[in-house]
Amino acid sequence: MSSEFGKNLRVSVFGESHGPGIGVVVNGFPAGETVDMDRLLFFMSRRAPGNSRLTTSRKEADLPEFISGIRDNVLTGSPFAAVIRNTNQRSGDYRGFDDTPRPSHADYTAAVKWHGAADMRGGGHFSGRLTAPLCAAGNIAIQILARKGIRIGAHLSNIGGVEDVRFPVQPDEELLDMLNAMMFPVIDGEKGIMMQQIIQQAAGEGDSVGGAVECTAVGLPAGLGAPMFEGVESMLSATLFGIPGVKGVSFGSGFDCVSMSGSAHNDPFIIEDGVVRTETNNSGGIQGGITNGMPLIVQVAMKPTASIAKAQKTISLSQMKETEIEIHGRHDPCIAIRAVPVIEAVTALVLLDLLIGGQA
Amino acid sequence: MSSEFGKNLRVSVFGESHGPGIGVVVNGFPAGETVDMDRLLFFMSRRAPGNSRLTTSRKEADLPEFISGIRDNVLTGSPFAAVIRNTNQRSGDYRGFDDTPRPSHADYTAAVKWHGAADMRGGGHFSGRLTAPLCAAGNIAIQILARKGIRIGAHLSNIGGVEDVRFPVQPDEELLDMLNAMMFPVIDGEKGIMMQQIIQQAAGEGDSVGGAVECTAVGLPAGLGAPMFEGVESMLSATLFGIPGVKGVSFGSGFDCVSMSGSAHNDPFIIEDGVVRTETNNSGGIQGGITNGMPLIVQVAMKPTASIAKAQKTISLSQMKETEIEIHGRHDPCIAIRAVPVIEAVTALVLLDLLIGGQA
Amino acid sequence: MSSEFGKNLRVSVFGESHGPGIGVVVNGFPAGETVDMDRLLFFMSRRAPGNSRLTTSRKEADLPEFISGIRDNVLTGSPFAAVIRNTNQRSGDYRGFDDTPRPSHADYTAAVKWHGAADMRGGGHFSGRLTAPLCAAGNIAIQILARKGIRIGAHLSNIGGVEDVRFPVQPDEELLDMLNAMMFPVIDGEKGIMMQQIIQQAAGEGDSVGGAVECTAVGLPAGLGAPMFEGVESMLSATLFGIPGVKGVSFGSGFDCVSMSGSAHNDPFIIEDGVVRTETNNSGGIQGGITNGMPLIVQVAMKPTASIAKAQKTISLSQMKETEIEIHGRHDPCIAIRAVPVIEAVTALVLLDLLIGGQA
Amino acid sequence: MSSEFGKNLRVSVFGESHGPGIGVVVNGFPAGETVDMDRLLFFMSRRAPGNSRLTTSRKEADLPEFISGIRDNVLTGSPFAAVIRNTNQRSGDYRGFDDTPRPSHADYTAAVKWHGAADMRGGGHFSGRLTAPLCAAGNIAIQILARKGIRIGAHLSNIGGVEDVRFPVQPDEELLDMLNAMMFPVIDGEKGIMMQQIIQQAAGEGDSVGGAVECTAVGLPAGLGAPMFEGVESMLSATLFGIPGVKGVSFGSGFDCVSMSGSAHNDPFIIEDGVVRTETNNSGGIQGGITNGMPLIVQVAMKPTASIAKAQKTISLSQMKETEIEIHGRHDPCIAIRAVPVIEAVTALVLLDLLIGGQA
Repeated sequence: MSSEFGKNLRVSVFGESHGPGIGVVVNGFPAGETVDMDRLLFFMSRRAPGNSRLTTSRKEADLPEFISGIRDNVLTGSPFAAVIRNTNQRSGDYRGFDDTPRPSHADYTAAVKWHGAADMRGGGHFSGRLTAPLCAAGNIAIQILARKGIRIGAHLSNIGGVEDVRFPVQPDEELLDMLNAMMFPVIDGEKGIMMQQIIQQAAGEGDSVGGAVECTAVGLPAGLGAPMFEGVESMLSATLFGIPGVKGVSFGSGFDCVSMSGSAHNDPFIIEDGVVRTETNNSGGIQGGITNGMPLIVQVAMKPTASIAKAQKTISLSQMKETEIEIHGRHDPCIAIRAVPVIEAVTALVLLDLLIGGQA
Repeated sequence: MSSEFGKNLRVSVFGESHGPGIGVVVNGFPAGETVDMDRLLFFMSRRAPGNSRLTTSRKEADLPEFISGIRDNVLTGSPFAAVIRNTNQRSGDYRGFDDTPRPSHADYTAAVKWHGAADMRGGGHFSGRLTAPLCAAGNIAIQILARKGIRIGAHLSNIGGVEDVRFPVQPDEELLDMLNAMMFPVIDGEKGIMMQQIIQQAAGEGDSVGGAVECTAVGLPAGLGAPMFEGVESMLSATLFGIPGVKGVSFGSGFDCVSMSGSAHNDPFIIEDGVVRTETNNSGGIQGGITNGMPLIVQVAMKPTASIAKAQKTISLSQMKETEIEIHGRHDPCIAIRAVPVIEAVTALVLLDLLIGGQA
Repeated sequence: MSSEFGKNLRVSVFGESHGPGIGVVVNGFPAGETVDMDRLLFFMSRRAPGNSRLTTSRKEADLPEFISGIRDNVLTGSPFAAVIRNTNQRSGDYRGFDDTPRPSHADYTAAVKWHGAADMRGGGHFSGRLTAPLCAAGNIAIQILARKGIRIGAHLSNIGGVEDVRFPVQPDEELLDMLNAMMFPVIDGEKGIMMQQIIQQAAGEGDSVGGAVECTAVGLPAGLGAPMFEGVESMLSATLFGIPGVKGVSFGSGFDCVSMSGSAHNDPFIIEDGVVRTETNNSGGIQGGITNGMPLIVQVAMKPTASIAKAQKTISLSQMKETEIEIHGRHDPCIAIRAVPVIEAVTALVLLDLLIGGQA
Repeated sequence: MSSEFGKNLRVSVFGESHGPGIGVVVNGFPAGETVDMDRLLFFMSRRAPGNSRLTTSRKEADLPEFISGIRDNVLTGSPFAAVIRNTNQRSGDYRGFDDTPRPSHADYTAAVKWHGAADMRGGGHFSGRLTAPLCAAGNIAIQILARKGIRIGAHLSNIGGVEDVRFPVQPDEELLDMLNAMMFPVIDGEKGIMMQQIIQQAAGEGDSVGGAVECTAVGLPAGLGAPMFEGVESMLSATLFGIPGVKGVSFGSGFDCVSMSGSAHNDPFIIEDGVVRTETNNSGGIQGGITNGMPLIVQVAMKPTASIAKAQKTISLSQMKETEIEIHGRHDPCIAIRAVPVIEAVTALVLLDLLIGGQA
């Protein structure tokens, strides 16, 4: 069992929500690359809780301590390691779930798998908090990719059924800059207001709501990835499904392709400025598992937060009988918002891995 | 670059559509298991072309020759290898695409990646034909799982926008037996007729149509999989995206979760016959990457067949100018149909891998 | 590039000798196992410098801080992480080698590979110090194996040409207990005295001397490992060569087999107490990559310490001309001594990985 | 369990000695490389039995059939697959060992691991015959490396205690050409005659003798490999121990380092023709797991053939009592001879894998 991913760039995440700390080890970051710490910390702040009424009111300092692989803000080549201390836990908020597993949390499956030894306070190793070190590592990848002309951006494409407009066939720098700077990134601001109303309503009812995130990578060379099981979709989906709460991953047209005809779905090749492109991008930038030079488009479905204030049916494992549970504490009414930078981070790490592996 | 997947069960697929043959090597099949060859061949026939007006009229014998790892129909423990000869190619049908890549095929990406050396006749290594050996290996996994009380089944959940009913919370043996025996597996027969009309209409227009497949595995123990990047969703999605034409993979509620509230989406725990279950199954049998003992539910979106008879815009790579292409030959108007057993096969192989790895 | 090993038990080592710290992440430790901290710290002390005149006079506290995967001395199932702070570096001792690489150190190869960005103070990531976290993780594996009846032991089988007696065909508990407790573990004490004289003489001359370590694991079940490239020898040798200074790895008779006849080398099968055994153990407990139930025997050659006080020829990389170098500081005259627990640790981790993977 | 190795070049070997065939799949061979079939077949003939009195009199055609990944002798980029039919088995020669395992063969361990289902006729999957497809794949790697200026060569460095001279610090083309063309490759012809006498004597007595092979790779760039567990030694030793009969692997000075002083063992850096070199090469071309541009030197110990004509003690597994066994049939009196090209093949495959992975 491995909380790890990657081939030529290997990422390993560790930690439990209420233990001493969480962290990440990365093998394979290219030596000599400089890390802009201000940009890294701003990026991490996009994931951090407590930044808005729409997210949990918990505050986390979440400042990573760099243990190895970086010296004077330059990557040394040896394994990169960072640790984030856990300082703001209120374990009391999470008492009692060892016996009465929270619906749609990992309390029950962790108890079965780890024979009751799991430290599940605050969700333990399954907590969304584990995505903080992913963002630290991911932003380093984002900075390295940017120097190679590859830009990542993402927005909330759907919350509670309200859809943002989708990325254009060729997202420009300006759009990506804008989204990268937003705490609630949407392309169509009016849709964003509607989404926020839905979230506030759910929060007011002690409930939560699901959402989708669309992520793009622009500037990729053609030829990354491989046929069949080491294609870009395979590597990226495997990693995205490692983010807590992800229920679906699709590329390009995604599940919409189900009701499309081939003549509408196929992406005709064209030549623009002497470069091979496609007129549409239902392929999401990938054909046969390999990048074609068009923007990568991936969409991720995030389930509604499982921790809700409403009373819920569950069971007592010790007594093997049905009972009720109420979950207190501070929770995001919509985890999709803070998932946006996490999805960008993971996408960047997988793409950097593919770039290191080479096109051929 | 690897056309391989798996950890404790390693599957490697090789071959090109119009080369001497295609095949599969599997490391880790449990020694001593008997293979029922009639069942294996029937299963392969579900994927084989030429069985209906709705699929391509090409005939493939597709009889696998077993090279190693099996003796007198019993698995020996050493690597399993099978080869299927290519005998029915009409290479003429596929001439000329080296210069004018077919839209939404891998012709262009393979040319870039492999510097023009790829053998892309009939789609080469990217051909759907490569799923035949997957079915041979997958049915062996299906037979082994069945002996452990684990049953796999799948149906066409959506074609061209016509939706079949979804799997019930606890699919029974009878339903799975029925689906396993059908060449056009649907739960609601009337929906099946509507789907077939849509496919025939597309075929008549020289066009194609997309579809979705919902697959379930019933009887899984709780505790399979691992948190984060080695969860069941990660391992299964990575492999499913290796099947040509897959654009999306989702579990349980999938992309529907986007417009759901937490109170509706959470699966309350209940006790039935002394066993821990959930009342609903929006989690698709997985929480925190780990099976919870409920049926696994995965849905896969298949794009419309890229090979259509209609004329399409493309480019000439040698002349770097835009041109037109017409694709002749025999093609499925809807690849989702023959993908059903492939998705079952891949699901079985991944689950057997997880079972061999163990619950703890 | 990965400072990682293992399949079902994944070990990742990070850190640089003179950075903030070093550490280890282990994925796959079995949940619920208790760790005896006194035993762990005693084991680590066997590797720690400063315990004798025969090893370096540097003192390292080397107390690991446990970040995750362990709570109240019980393994929780999630990734285990430990960090050891670097506190006692004298960077001045190591100045100046960026330009004048030390002979038979990794200064030059790291400079080439990492384009001069490597932090090579004190050997950087290539330092023997990186074996401290290996010992922390390895002793946990040793404790788990002991509960399964598997005991590990090792001794200095050769230093400077003086050979200790080899392990008997069936090493008993008493012998292993004795060796586990010794800071200079030898079976024949008189040979040990001769070895120590050789080391002291080398130290007195500002020189160093090589050595070999023989390690055994007793109580292994038959059937661990796999044919060809995932055999016990393959997995163990790959990991042992990861220890700085290892130049050779052999099993059973090792390089002595070169001058033996088959009739002398073959291990005849016998039955003892109703159990299948072999009369001799030239196979080192492994046949065809798979354990046969006899003690595992592995021998490891450790080169003489590369850091010696004598002046040596080297080059200036900036001036591309030949020059001389003198290495000051505190160095072990024979690294084989402190390598003994490291080799035990690595052997235990690999064997636990194989046990978790299962016999079939 | 996996008869596979490699990271960016993945090699998978399958087959059983007396089943329908054996073969190999390679993922990651660079597209566009031409294969000289005459050279490939000559290389395979060096491993083939029946070429001399010193090897077994069995004849094997051993002509590989190429199934995929190669077209008109050019690698296409997709997985390479080759199958070699088994045609010359005399199963009668191998009857009866299921119950009475041959000493120092894998009969017993395979029976335990695979619950009696293993097809062990002729050694089954553990047979030295499985190295034939390795040689087919390996010679392709050798040809690709040669175009990059990297040459591989090997000789019998020791048979029965008679030592050939070791490779010089810089082996030249002429020496490697000579060794590549020899069926009994030695540098010192007189030592070769003595070795052959020892082998003939052993054969005359129905016995066998061990041997060592020294292999070099000249022309490697500095910077291949990685620290710790993905170093060149780790990757190469893991693969070499997958060759049946290997008992030890060492680099550079190998086990001789045990009795050397640091001042004698360290390799002083020098500058020759404007290039960084070392005066001696006790490091075997590797420092800290990474190539330093000097020739790679690896030595492999091969045990005496386990199949000898002399009567041997063994047991009956069904009766659990001791008995005797006589092995008939045709066997090499010294497997080291035919292992020479296998070791070259494996070395080339591992080095090509490292080259594809890149220096940084």
